[in-house]
Amino acid sequence: MTAPAALTALFGDRCRTDADTLTEYGRDWTRYTEPAASAVVFPTSRDELVELVKLANRDRLALVPSGGRTGLSGGACATAGEVVVSMEKMDRLLDFNQTDRLITVEAGMVTEVLQQHALERELYFPVDFASRGSSRIGGNIATNAGGIKVVRYGMFRDWVAGLTVVTGAGEVLELNHGLEKNNTGYDFRHLFVGSEGTLGFVVDATLKLARRPKELAVMLLAVPQLSDVMEVFNRFRRDIDLSAFEFFSDQALRHVEARGLVASPFAERENYYVVLEFERIADSAETMALDAFESLLENGFVTDGVLAQSETQAAQLWRLREDISESITPRTPYKNDIAVRPSQVPAFVAELDALLAREYPDFEVVWFGHIGDGNLHINVLRPLDMDIAAFKSACEQVNTRVFGLLQRYRGSMSAEHGVGLLKRQYLDISRSEAEIALMRRVKAAFDPNGVMNPGKLVA
Amino acid sequence: MTAPAALTALFGDRCRTDADTLTEYGRDWTRYTEPAASAVVFPTSRDELVELVKLANRDRLALVPSGGRTGLSGGACATAGEVVVSMEKMDRLLDFNQTDRLITVEAGMVTEVLQQHALERELYFPVDFASRGSSRIGGNIATNAGGIKVVRYGMFRDWVAGLTVVTGAGEVLELNHGLEKNNTGYDFRHLFVGSEGTLGFVVDATLKLARRPKELAVMLLAVPQLSDVMEVFNRFRRDIDLSAFEFFSDQALRHVEARGLVASPFAERENYYVVLEFERIADSAETMALDAFESLLENGFVTDGVLAQSETQAAQLWRLREDISESITPRTPYKNDIAVRPSQVPAFVAELDALLAREYPDFEVVWFGHIGDGNLHINVLRPLDMDIAAFKSACEQVNTRVFGLLQRYRGSMSAEHGVGLLKRQYLDISRSEAEIALMRRVKAAFDPNGVMNPGKLVA
Repeated sequence: MTAPAALTALFGDRCRTDADTLTEYGRDWTRYTEPAASAVVFPTSRDELVELVKLANRDRLALVPSGGRTGLSGGACATAGEVVVSMEKMDRLLDFNQTDRLITVEAGMVTEVLQQHALERELYFPVDFASRGSSRIGGNIATNAGGIKVVRYGMFRDWVAGLTVVTGAGEVLELNHGLEKNNTGYDFRHLFVGSEGTLGFVVDATLKLARRPKELAVMLLAVPQLSDVMEVFNRFRRDIDLSAFEFFSDQALRHVEARGLVASPFAERENYYVVLEFERIADSAETMALDAFESLLENGFVTDGVLAQSETQAAQLWRLREDISESITPRTPYKNDIAVRPSQVPAFVAELDALLAREYPDFEVVWFGHIGDGNLHINVLRPLDMDIAAFKSACEQVNTRVFGLLQRYRGSMSAEHGVGLLKRQYLDISRSEAEIALMRRVKAAFDPNGVMNPGKLVA
Repeated sequence: MTAPAALTALFGDRCRTDADTLTEYGRDWTRYTEPAASAVVFPTSRDELVELVKLANRDRLALVPSGGRTGLSGGACATAGEVVVSMEKMDRLLDFNQTDRLITVEAGMVTEVLQQHALERELYFPVDFASRGSSRIGGNIATNAGGIKVVRYGMFRDWVAGLTVVTGAGEVLELNHGLEKNNTGYDFRHLFVGSEGTLGFVVDATLKLARRPKELAVMLLAVPQLSDVMEVFNRFRRDIDLSAFEFFSDQALRHVEARGLVASPFAERENYYVVLEFERIADSAETMALDAFESLLENGFVTDGVLAQSETQAAQLWRLREDISESITPRTPYKNDIAVRPSQVPAFVAELDALLAREYPDFEVVWFGHIGDGNLHINVLRPLDMDIAAFKSACEQVNTRVFGLLQRYRGSMSAEHGVGLLKRQYLDISRSEAEIALMRRVKAAFDPNGVMNPGKLVA
């Protein structure tokens, strides 16, 4: 392939069209579409991004902003001859202030690098998830990343104090300037967070940092009934600011254990497990947690529990939850990332479980998720004797039913992963026709010629 | 005055045009404009609001959404024959869920009533400010209210989990459904928060509630140098999650003390004072606070301090800060509500102080504010021998210089109070030309005929 001459003129050897690069940068962690980028460019400055967007408007090029490509909805896939714009060469630390607890970084910085920068400064960047080692800040902002600490620290949006963006019209906007308080009209910063690259490029972000937590205590609990998980959540939360509250099924645990790397610390099996974490802000926090455990045990809401006695043990308990995704990968799981209000999780899951068991008795379904914020990851595993195409098609039928149920619960059809390419057809499950029409009008205000990530979300 | 027949048909005796009502509902806490509403209507349902907006679009009526009218930027003023739409008859509690810690209330509910509902349920609504007894939820959302607990709990925006709105085109949008996680496209909830009634009406809101804090500890500190206030902030914040950190000058304190109701507990005067608050989450919190105090005292950053020994004493310490506004009211203060990044407060204030002293030696300036989040309230007091018109005109000249300085610090010209009518001419201090143009385009997407709060913000 050859790139448009104007692209080569602008980027020189930072414009690439070799087959390997086109394939690698044309896809994300999903594997449901064929990569078909026409070129991949690597800007190194805001001004280059402005030039690129102007060129795209002039020549009607389609641009796909690209970070770590760890997305799970195809938001960074290039499938129709687009130009992929990789931000990975823009990964510098630009500014830090201890008093303000603010750090300014370019969009291409890797999440874990940001977390390390915070720790080195005795502070803490609390948004955390499995792809921390390869996801990048711009992508986190584009998808409003969530993860395992939302129950205490919120979503990525909550940590964005300022953004520099280049809109689809090539305008540079410096949004909110890192201010804590700034009530001067519509907050476009929040419009860009979660916009999945359809309004413009994030150039850099000014992010808030938190106080570095003292030692973190980790507990694993065995819970017989899913309907009691929320009871357990409420009892702990009454006295303690939990920083994580994750659940998974015994089925999920068996997949993790089958790899032989970690094992349940309990003598008996139980239906469900909870990993919870809190800050040992004082000795009393641990006392309160043990009190909560005792009372739940007496009432039969939990049947066993372990409080990690060392960092090593804490890490092992966490792995029982964090290794689930990887352990089921060989089974080509069809993933749904849905959310309802936490109080509705037990009823919703009961209905969903019944629905799946009735309609698709041959499918194994693995449940886990961030139940403290109502977010469930449903992984339907491919029967070993079923080919991938037939499985995918069957899952799409499952989807229709799952989403019908979800709509009745007024839930989200994409809690963390965004809409991208793969969930576009389901947008009306969670957003009304009027909202979708307004999204298109807002999109047109920022990107009048539709050069930004066409085919994704509402673009 | 007579109201348009269609309005009377819709609202019956809930459409009022008597002079007292027109005056009362035509203004807010500002007193710089003459009220000139043509009618005041009191809807009681969402459907009535939809009918009203459709009527306004048909007959090109201008609508002013109206809550507790405690605003300080004229956002709820009717000065050009508008129809004021008071939400005060829509003040019901609609829903509550203990597990979700969510409460749904109509837009007309008074802030303090919401706070009480939370306390009755052993939970806590943490956004708090002086007008809690009369401001209403819809107005808080329209202006993204801040207040005295932002340093720990953030702005009103951070507590909004869902909104029902009627757009300027008469469409009903149910935004976000109270979900913690919902990454399904542009988050219009955050667009409506802070939109000052220019996009549509807030009908009801689903708000998050926090764990009710244990006992709150309150300290008053005497601080010689303004430049050291941030040092004090940093030292305390290192170990403790402060829930408030407020400063004021000795001049401000003298105005409070002159009323004879409360007095400084210190034997000596000091240049500045800080009121800070934290949760006694364990005995160790108090120990850590006293350690912080000792080390600051040793280093001369503070010269005296008091830790309240009772709730009564805590309330008295708070009054030293909270009574400032009322105590200077007789001096017709010209208020600016500005913010810079906290780290820049000392340098900014030094420059501003010098500027004011040089240019306007006859004006007394009273400083106080939420310094933990960079927010300063500057109150210029009218010299007793100067008439109000001349004073206002002189202050507008002060404004030009203050805002010039502020722009150099990339600060906000309205940290909490919003833009409304009174600060509209200064919008370009904090927002670029491109942003303002985009705000107008977004406004047009939601309110194509411009019926919502014309003349305010960018409308």
